[in-house]
Amino acid sequence: MTNIAVIGCGYWGPNLIRNFAKLKECQLVAAADQGRDRLDVVKFLCPTMRLTTSAEEILEDKTIEGVAIATPISTHFPIAQKALAKGKHVFIEKPMTATSDEAEELTELAAKNRRVLMVDHTFIYTGAVRKLRSFVESGELGEIYYYDSVRINLGLFQHDANVLWDLAPHDFAIMDYLIPKRAVSVSAVGSSPVRWNGWRRESLAYISVDFEDGTLAHFHVNWLSPVKLRRTLIGGSRKMIIYDHLDPDNQLKIYDKGVEIKEDQERYQALVQYRTGDLLAPKIDQTEALSVACRHFVHCIQNQQRPETDGMAGLRVVRLLEAAQHSMNYGGRRTQLWEGSRRAQVASG
Amino acid sequence: MTNIAVIGCGYWGPNLIRNFAKLKECQLVAAADQGRDRLDVVKFLCPTMRLTTSAEEILEDKTIEGVAIATPISTHFPIAQKALAKGKHVFIEKPMTATSDEAEELTELAAKNRRVLMVDHTFIYTGAVRKLRSFVESGELGEIYYYDSVRINLGLFQHDANVLWDLAPHDFAIMDYLIPKRAVSVSAVGSSPVRWNGWRRESLAYISVDFEDGTLAHFHVNWLSPVKLRRTLIGGSRKMIIYDHLDPDNQLKIYDKGVEIKEDQERYQALVQYRTGDLLAPKIDQTEALSVACRHFVHCIQNQQRPETDGMAGLRVVRLLEAAQHSMNYGGRRTQLWEGSRRAQVASG
Amino acid sequence: MTNIAVIGCGYWGPNLIRNFAKLKECQLVAAADQGRDRLDVVKFLCPTMRLTTSAEEILEDKTIEGVAIATPISTHFPIAQKALAKGKHVFIEKPMTATSDEAEELTELAAKNRRVLMVDHTFIYTGAVRKLRSFVESGELGEIYYYDSVRINLGLFQHDANVLWDLAPHDFAIMDYLIPKRAVSVSAVGSSPVRWNGWRRESLAYISVDFEDGTLAHFHVNWLSPVKLRRTLIGGSRKMIIYDHLDPDNQLKIYDKGVEIKEDQERYQALVQYRTGDLLAPKIDQTEALSVACRHFVHCIQNQQRPETDGMAGLRVVRLLEAAQHSMNYGGRRTQLWEGSRRAQVASG
Amino acid sequence: MTNIAVIGCGYWGPNLIRNFAKLKECQLVAAADQGRDRLDVVKFLCPTMRLTTSAEEILEDKTIEGVAIATPISTHFPIAQKALAKGKHVFIEKPMTATSDEAEELTELAAKNRRVLMVDHTFIYTGAVRKLRSFVESGELGEIYYYDSVRINLGLFQHDANVLWDLAPHDFAIMDYLIPKRAVSVSAVGSSPVRWNGWRRESLAYISVDFEDGTLAHFHVNWLSPVKLRRTLIGGSRKMIIYDHLDPDNQLKIYDKGVEIKEDQERYQALVQYRTGDLLAPKIDQTEALSVACRHFVHCIQNQQRPETDGMAGLRVVRLLEAAQHSMNYGGRRTQLWEGSRRAQVASG
Repeated sequence: MTNIAVIGCGYWGPNLIRNFAKLKECQLVAAADQGRDRLDVVKFLCPTMRLTTSAEEILEDKTIEGVAIATPISTHFPIAQKALAKGKHVFIEKPMTATSDEAEELTELAAKNRRVLMVDHTFIYTGAVRKLRSFVESGELGEIYYYDSVRINLGLFQHDANVLWDLAPHDFAIMDYLIPKRAVSVSAVGSSPVRWNGWRRESLAYISVDFEDGTLAHFHVNWLSPVKLRRTLIGGSRKMIIYDHLDPDNQLKIYDKGVEIKEDQERYQALVQYRTGDLLAPKIDQTEALSVACRHFVHCIQNQQRPETDGMAGLRVVRLLEAAQHSMNYGGRRTQLWEGSRRAQVASG
Repeated sequence: MTNIAVIGCGYWGPNLIRNFAKLKECQLVAAADQGRDRLDVVKFLCPTMRLTTSAEEILEDKTIEGVAIATPISTHFPIAQKALAKGKHVFIEKPMTATSDEAEELTELAAKNRRVLMVDHTFIYTGAVRKLRSFVESGELGEIYYYDSVRINLGLFQHDANVLWDLAPHDFAIMDYLIPKRAVSVSAVGSSPVRWNGWRRESLAYISVDFEDGTLAHFHVNWLSPVKLRRTLIGGSRKMIIYDHLDPDNQLKIYDKGVEIKEDQERYQALVQYRTGDLLAPKIDQTEALSVACRHFVHCIQNQQRPETDGMAGLRVVRLLEAAQHSMNYGGRRTQLWEGSRRAQVASG
Repeated sequence: MTNIAVIGCGYWGPNLIRNFAKLKECQLVAAADQGRDRLDVVKFLCPTMRLTTSAEEILEDKTIEGVAIATPISTHFPIAQKALAKGKHVFIEKPMTATSDEAEELTELAAKNRRVLMVDHTFIYTGAVRKLRSFVESGELGEIYYYDSVRINLGLFQHDANVLWDLAPHDFAIMDYLIPKRAVSVSAVGSSPVRWNGWRRESLAYISVDFEDGTLAHFHVNWLSPVKLRRTLIGGSRKMIIYDHLDPDNQLKIYDKGVEIKEDQERYQALVQYRTGDLLAPKIDQTEALSVACRHFVHCIQNQQRPETDGMAGLRVVRLLEAAQHSMNYGGRRTQLWEGSRRAQVASG
Repeated sequence: MTNIAVIGCGYWGPNLIRNFAKLKECQLVAAADQGRDRLDVVKFLCPTMRLTTSAEEILEDKTIEGVAIATPISTHFPIAQKALAKGKHVFIEKPMTATSDEAEELTELAAKNRRVLMVDHTFIYTGAVRKLRSFVESGELGEIYYYDSVRINLGLFQHDANVLWDLAPHDFAIMDYLIPKRAVSVSAVGSSPVRWNGWRRESLAYISVDFEDGTLAHFHVNWLSPVKLRRTLIGGSRKMIIYDHLDPDNQLKIYDKGVEIKEDQERYQALVQYRTGDLLAPKIDQTEALSVACRHFVHCIQNQQRPETDGMAGLRVVRLLEAAQHSMNYGGRRTQLWEGSRRAQVASG
């Protein structure tokens, strides 16, 4: 039986506790939070676990094999670093770290210590995104023409993040999982019409990501929208897909639609023709994604496997965030993603 | 009675003929197109009008006071220039011209000759956009936070334009009409995954427009979408609006939603609070916009008035298009809109 | 070449004229209406046709082989009777006649004179309804469990009909075409909250139709709804279908959903299990239904064929209307549909 | 402090336990269920409460003032009767009882013993239904023209009820609360295409309810629908309302639409005119209805008040169910609701 502990019982921590507590493959033995009130909130979720205000106490406990870290972003690195150094397997909330340097260091440390390092890119474990990937891999979509993502709603303003670092990790992780090509550069513009406490924090942003072959991905994230939308369009040469996370009955709609170029023998020129066929909304497995993710973490520990959302995936997402933030800071300049370097370097193009 | 003629009977020309023919304030006396087959198509729309394959013949006809030009974009300038030189009033399809130099020259010529020069920014004459403007002007929206526009569908690929020049003129014209601030720069990225006849033409594009006070507008235009969307979000400090052209019963939805910053006396910091109230979908006048536009043109001729969508509005839209195209050509570089110069200059920042 | 004439140029007549005029298989030679103003409206739709205020003149014209009757319901019978007596083929608007006796007499007359008698049940010629029938016939739906139809909107109040006779003919015709079983009885309730000119006319009604095997069909027609709905649910043992006429992109949605009864060996009782699979929205042929219907009429004339919506189909629909009206008049009494009699008899059960 | 106990921990019981446990105004002291496994499920919801397999034990406990009964329908009566006889206040699941005789007897017993008898018509405590009632009472709707309710989905087949007794209590309770008129008769048709264990149980039904002034209400309940709908239309002479329980952002849509009858002086006849104005979707209080209901029960106990959904409301709903079932059993016969008798009598008209 694998012993697991959760560090951080704020917004997401209770969900981790609830899911690890349900798993038969592991035992949730402890939870830590600096706030006593947060511990009071979570204690009923798993009456048998130990509660502590000291993360240190958990990191020093040799009977604990895996820790799940759901603390503020800036503390991900020091906690995860210590946990890995102490030989623990680490499950870490998104975004993995506040900088790509930190993400790279954790990845290397996990590799060196042969520990599992998994990032909680929860959407990768949804039935919809997994089905989407099978469509891409099977070739049914054809060549990917574009990727367009909209994730907007009213709030929730975060205390330690802007809209980019709050919402875009989800979409970058999904794109990274779905598109089997290398992203090479990013440009982004943001706006911060609502300011408070003197901090400039973007509450809406538009991000473009270019792939090596010219494919374009685009993201709209927004904390100031009157309606809630979570919708991704993927245009392919054979089919086109709409992924609407909020339409439970039809999360994926696969359109047999497209454009065909035909040679016109008489006029010696090409014609564009439109193709319109059936629409299919496949049945989607509705198992709670976080439950799948937690089980996967435990499975990777027990079988010494590399998780699907490993440190490298976490690092790629942090690099995209970092590059997008850099571009926003410099008025939308195209920013390269150099992945070959010792430390991820971000520079303006 | 004012005599009107239509030059160009292709895609849009028949709509102009149908609408001018219905007006009691004017007489539609002639229509021209180089193609005999096009003249055959339109003749029943107004059996009393003269048909000709020569635009020249119409421009030389001194009994004609106003001409409506619905020819390919590249020919707008020479035809309109000649018409104005001959003392005619000119109604011209969007986009006004292929370059801002041409637009500026027409504007000056019209001013010098005291002729009406009107650009067919049709959406400005819809009930929805006019109601929208009244909301902005009344202060009900509060401060404008952002402007976000999506205009996507499958095709129609144009022979003489890319998706930017085909679809964005509508949205640039609406934004120009609604937002009483000066746009200062543009950045745009596009993609042309479908190529034919050797021509590189963008079939999807994302455009950002910055205003002098930092307000951000963003546009998504796309010829490769499986679904048709025409939706604009406008976020204000007091209210937020969704304008959905395709939802006939609720074209405008006005949300009494927003974010409020409150000083927390105890903690000496500001708190973000959310406000959620009623939703109102006001009744929208459904009069055909083109009919309103045609009547407005005739009214301006007869009363020597400046049209709401005059040459300057047309010029501003062409400058935005030109700057967006320039930005796309140079990998998304922010491009300034210099409006003070003798000739509109576009340069990369 | 078959010569066709249209009698009645009110609401629907112009649509008939426009469609017959386009057909190459026939020649539209004349149109009649008692109102000169109506003739003025339609003359441009087919400049070559003769116009007359006398239906008589058309019925007497021996060069005319087929007439399409789009006059008020109460005049369908005398005009059609005379036309058939004169040896003409007849295309008649829905509902076929004001009584089932009249419908039966026309059917017999057409049979005796070997003329085509076709009722304009337009929906039968839509791509959606034809596709629906192919699903039913192929067995893909399984056993039909129920048929539920909603056709509601604000107005249009008719001068010579209540909501039952105005809207239900569409749905009765579709049901009659789709369900290969014999309807045996009808019950209906209506309400007439808005009265004018002293006439009691139902503006909303609910109608149940029972089939010989116990299958239930139900119809909601309403002139007082704030929203427009045209939606039919068909529940089958294998699949379930939603037919939404107003959703152009997804007129048919075929759900792989259902209920399965499983024997529980241990408990010696049956369990209900739910099955949920993919949703398919097949591509629907969008050819204008009236154009298909008009061509079918001409084809039947030229090939001496029986139309798909022949006099018997029209008679069955009138019998359903008559029985539903009878039931409404008698407080919802179940009313038998006796089809075996010389004249259709309607009696309360 | 008022001591409360819950009897029955099946489908709905846990919701009652969760909500009573949260209330500060009372103490949840015990829960009973014949099944040990059910007690295991609920124990974490309120660790301090006593658990027992004996309802009797709770009814005999003199420290318990109020009991909430969430057992199968057939047992509502004996348990509630005993509880009232023992001087306890009673909160009872819908439908109140299996027969109107039982409901009447409980009502009388509660009155005699001066105990609170409240039926859990949960929807009456939703923000949407309460807002709806304020619209009706304020006269904003005008005269009520019709009431049309649709509550359909796939399953859940009940072991002790058909679709009428399972779903219609919700809608009858809402109608009873909203319409301030006396219902006089009911007619209903049902169908049971899926049979199991030899029991004929309707899985879809259509019910009409007539009011004394001729207003018509209609209900469609269905366990065999591929889509889930909970939608009520209320047509008024001034406004019309759509109440869609499943559209969280716009549960109520109030249409300023209607029909007006105008006298035409010239033609001496009335004309129907349509009025179309704004649409308003008011903000709805989203407090959990069951929480409001539980607090209301405790409040009524402590203040000796009559609950909004008292025994009489429960009785009226059971009478409607009974009459509808009777009508279904007799092929849709109109069935009178005689409310004046000593025992509710149901007879066919």
